Amino acid sequence: MMEKASAPVVVQKLEPKHRKGLVVVITGNGKGKTTSALGMVVRAVGHRMSVCMIQFMKGDLYAGEWDGVKSLPGVEFHTTGKGFCGIGGNPYPWKEHRENAQYAVGLAREKIASHQFDLVILDEINNAVKLKLVDLEQVLGLIETKPPLMHLVLTGRDAADAVIELADTVSEVHEVKHPYRKDIEPQPGIDY
Amino acid sequence: MMEKASAPVVVQKLEPKHRKGLVVVITGNGKGKTTSALGMVVRAVGHRMSVCMIQFMKGDLYAGEWDGVKSLPGVEFHTTGKGFCGIGGNPYPWKEHRENAQYAVGLAREKIASHQFDLVILDEINNAVKLKLVDLEQVLGLIETKPPLMHLVLTGRDAADAVIELADTVSEVHEVKHPYRKDIEPQPGIDY
Repeated sequence: MMEKASAPVVVQKLEPKHRKGLVVVITGNGKGKTTSALGMVVRAVGHRMSVCMIQFMKGDLYAGEWDGVKSLPGVEFHTTGKGFCGIGGNPYPWKEHRENAQYAVGLAREKIASHQFDLVILDEINNAVKLKLVDLEQVLGLIETKPPLMHLVLTGRDAADAVIELADTVSEVHEVKHPYRKDIEPQPGIDY
Repeated sequence: MMEKASAPVVVQKLEPKHRKGLVVVITGNGKGKTTSALGMVVRAVGHRMSVCMIQFMKGDLYAGEWDGVKSLPGVEFHTTGKGFCGIGGNPYPWKEHRENAQYAVGLAREKIASHQFDLVILDEINNAVKLKLVDLEQVLGLIETKPPLMHLVLTGRDAADAVIELADTVSEVHEVKHPYRKDIEPQPGIDY
């Protein structure tokens, strides 16, 4: 093991004068929106916060985060769906996707109202609204009833303007296509 | 607790025919690059991969991930720096930042050469190259000596063209500024 060359650093710890629960929207067509939300889970756990992550639509295809988040203390994790509605190969009718998404909305409402969580992540909810599995008014209702100190993160492409309007921060993830990537299949640990 | 409305879904598990260790660059001026890398750690842990994350420059300001990643099995985590060189308020001279970054390069070389990791993340290394704390040739050397099945993730704004050229995937994170956000201080669990 190498030795560090110079003297140790003094570590500072930020403490905001005013705590505020943020509404964060992560949208855009690039890969990395859920990945970013998972990173927030890691940070929140480090701060000893309690987290609830609900994945809309996802549930038909195993992803590393299903087991990864289980290793983190204070995290509740739910997959509620049957895959991406309307995407080629998905065998389930719209009505079933709608039922699952409506279950997820009820679950989100319950978790937010419990006041037990410092961070609630509704993964792919923006996309679910676009596909009419969730009504826009339902999402606006979830945002409006959020406890003031609770962070609420909404991911998924095609976030509605009205949701963006209520957000404190909006991030857009873009993928710069790379010619070599097209011949490489999705790889565990990176893509799922 | 609400009941799910419809029948359970059949879960599929992807298994690529050809495994390949990817070189992933996460760049752009928006917030969320390190966050995204942390999400990859969660995924990789779920797949029972072993992970080494080395943060360049960071080390002077506590962030939730320092403790968050400690909860994850199979993850080695190092902060090696003294903060962002040249950013207002950072008291350390360039020479010390360079020494720390050179230590981090040696550490990265050692960890990559050990063949003990499925995923190595060099956080803020792109930025460190831009600030001349790390030489571009050193980064290209790390990429070239990477084991074929190991994923290598390089984060930080201003990624060099030569690094992008060698990458399999490049993601750019953009922040859509929001007028309300400017009056809100950085919040734990979201911003750090």
